[in-house]
Amino acid sequence: MRRLSTQDQNFQQQFAELLAFETVNDPELLKTVDQIIADVRAKGDVHVLALTQQFDRHPATTFSQLELTQAQLQHAFDDLSDDVRQALELAANRIREFHQAQKQDGWTYVDALGNTLGQKVTPLDRVGIYVPGGLASYPSSVLMNAIPAHVAGVPEIIMVVPAPNGELNPLVLAAAYLAGVSRVFTIGGAQAVAALAYGTATIPQVDKITGPGNRFVAAAKRAVFGQVGIDMIAGPSEILVYAEGENNAEWLAMDLLSQAEHDTVAQAIFITPDQDLLEAVAEKIESHLADLPKAEIAKTSIANRGALVLVKDRAEAIQLINQVAPEHLELCLDEAEAMSAEIRHAGAIFMGRYTPEAIGDYCAGPNHVLPTSGTARFSSPLGVYDFQKRSSLIMCSEQGVKTLAKTADTLAQQENLDAHARSARYRYQS
Amino acid sequence: MRRLSTQDQNFQQQFAELLAFETVNDPELLKTVDQIIADVRAKGDVHVLALTQQFDRHPATTFSQLELTQAQLQHAFDDLSDDVRQALELAANRIREFHQAQKQDGWTYVDALGNTLGQKVTPLDRVGIYVPGGLASYPSSVLMNAIPAHVAGVPEIIMVVPAPNGELNPLVLAAAYLAGVSRVFTIGGAQAVAALAYGTATIPQVDKITGPGNRFVAAAKRAVFGQVGIDMIAGPSEILVYAEGENNAEWLAMDLLSQAEHDTVAQAIFITPDQDLLEAVAEKIESHLADLPKAEIAKTSIANRGALVLVKDRAEAIQLINQVAPEHLELCLDEAEAMSAEIRHAGAIFMGRYTPEAIGDYCAGPNHVLPTSGTARFSSPLGVYDFQKRSSLIMCSEQGVKTLAKTADTLAQQENLDAHARSARYRYQS
Repeated sequence: MRRLSTQDQNFQQQFAELLAFETVNDPELLKTVDQIIADVRAKGDVHVLALTQQFDRHPATTFSQLELTQAQLQHAFDDLSDDVRQALELAANRIREFHQAQKQDGWTYVDALGNTLGQKVTPLDRVGIYVPGGLASYPSSVLMNAIPAHVAGVPEIIMVVPAPNGELNPLVLAAAYLAGVSRVFTIGGAQAVAALAYGTATIPQVDKITGPGNRFVAAAKRAVFGQVGIDMIAGPSEILVYAEGENNAEWLAMDLLSQAEHDTVAQAIFITPDQDLLEAVAEKIESHLADLPKAEIAKTSIANRGALVLVKDRAEAIQLINQVAPEHLELCLDEAEAMSAEIRHAGAIFMGRYTPEAIGDYCAGPNHVLPTSGTARFSSPLGVYDFQKRSSLIMCSEQGVKTLAKTADTLAQQENLDAHARSARYRYQS
Repeated sequence: MRRLSTQDQNFQQQFAELLAFETVNDPELLKTVDQIIADVRAKGDVHVLALTQQFDRHPATTFSQLELTQAQLQHAFDDLSDDVRQALELAANRIREFHQAQKQDGWTYVDALGNTLGQKVTPLDRVGIYVPGGLASYPSSVLMNAIPAHVAGVPEIIMVVPAPNGELNPLVLAAAYLAGVSRVFTIGGAQAVAALAYGTATIPQVDKITGPGNRFVAAAKRAVFGQVGIDMIAGPSEILVYAEGENNAEWLAMDLLSQAEHDTVAQAIFITPDQDLLEAVAEKIESHLADLPKAEIAKTSIANRGALVLVKDRAEAIQLINQVAPEHLELCLDEAEAMSAEIRHAGAIFMGRYTPEAIGDYCAGPNHVLPTSGTARFSSPLGVYDFQKRSSLIMCSEQGVKTLAKTADTLAQQENLDAHARSARYRYQS
């Protein structure tokens, strides 16, 4: 496994190379996706059905067979074993509790002139949630996307999930039932994104689309951005673990591997000022790489994108962490809370030795949809705020408007906008 | 001017046609912009200077001549006439006051198991503000973009503004001084967006780019989205005025014209249940179209995209307004506040007869950068929240983690993520 030290002559260059990851915009892919979107807009349901038969080998012969009933969702939920149902319920309840704290309310105030100003907060009318099918079909993703929308008060939550060969993960349907999803269509790919963005005879047009997907889905989301809102385009998953003092090297190694098993391009970085701990973690990673079911994926991820970084001290680590702006950050030390105050950029911060990243993926409460590839510099975890929007409120009184109208008149004249100036002037010369 | 009535047989079709406005994605434009971005990344300052000499006919011969000093900004401010300086200061103070109410703080709570959960809020490190040059160079836009960033606590605000032939609007520089802009470069177009997104030797790389621009700027912002954050891609300006009861037709007409004068594709829509008021407003619009300095622009806007819509009653108007999701909405009636409670989608709502939209453009306090083209369905005015981001906080106690780790273990096994399951298991089997 790659070892770096901040004492290396060319450390900054090596570290920058480690972080470099650029998604290539394949022009052929973009052309294909643009064509799918245009065709779905022109032909609607018929085309979505045809592509679903073609790409997903779905046995449906009519479009209505692509919609699941609430009874089917409930059936999937009722069929769960006790331990799985309890785990799913505990996760859903905790996610709901955390996200309720994010809900924002409107406010107004009256200024010194007697004018009322404020901000109104409303939920979106209808949102679409993309859930990947096949191997990466995760019930936890259903909870993490649908519950914030539900807490925000979105009346209609439309879920799409491809069903290769007509097959579905029942746990995904159970999660949809639990999370309050309104309707489920078993479609996927760019055609599902296009159908949600523009609507078809059967699929209602939504206002925002969230959720992860393959490169066709990512390209389609980027293409419909503006027509509808989207969440971030997700890159590969990452974890950065910082540890100092007494630590269990085996725990740390497994936390790093829990990201590495996601994807061959996932990134696991370990930072410590403790050379012995660094070597102990390296050894545990090697030994577990032998016996993990997803060893092949994890090995490639660790070999190509993983790193063990030796730093002089905590201050140097803080600097590197803020440079990375990691999706997941574990701070495994006694002073984890104090150190977290120095972290400016991270999707989620897991503090102390008893907070493995994996519990954040499922049931800690905060969202597991987090900014990747350094985008924590400017973006946030998926949250209730993604399903609410604001309107400004302004109400002037007959007296209160005079000062403002005079000011607007003066400035509008400077900008050569005469109708603006006159419109304001009417209110103070009246 | 176009007149519609909800009683018309084909009203919904006519209304949908009125609202239809799609920006064409010109493939040639995208290719040009992609090339500019690639060249700026490869060649840096030299290329930005060359394009600025070429496109803006700027007389600078070295890159350093493209940066303004704080002394130049202060000089512009000191040179303002008293009335303009006072107007700008009043506007800046009110914008700052309103946006301070938007600032969000972090929070934490301890759950029933003894685990700490929360949300940390931090400002972005560095943002770029694009200010158009030439005709549409508005000092009010400087205030509306820079002040929310400043209130959020962004330490570095980098402004770019093209200076055709080396000429600048001094009021734009004065506004930059007043709003707390850190550095100003006189560059524009796709090259300015590329320089901000990737950084050059001289121009620091930013985390987010906001502000309006021409189609090159819009295409470049879309292209760098993901590398940096961006605000919405703005469409043409719009106003929707609803009036009933006692109203001054001349005031209403001028409010509609104040948007029409912005752009030939701007949209002004008047809705009322009062046929007489509708005709009175139509007449006043016609008469003012004769004497406005920007009559040519306003005439085209009114002829091509304007409309007077007669509705049966207020309930019908509310339905239409929510369908439009207008950027600016005026509610000119006695019960404006009650009616505003029924509005689900609008950028800003101006209530009562003494609240012309124009005061919102300059000095009411709320932001004038608002969602256009129906995007108020899912997005918000530019605000302090655009310059802050959140990190989730999770800290489990040794006892508190046990229930969560067991739950994560169960769910991770269902998702076939064995390293996740083991990482969780270590914490409750220890």
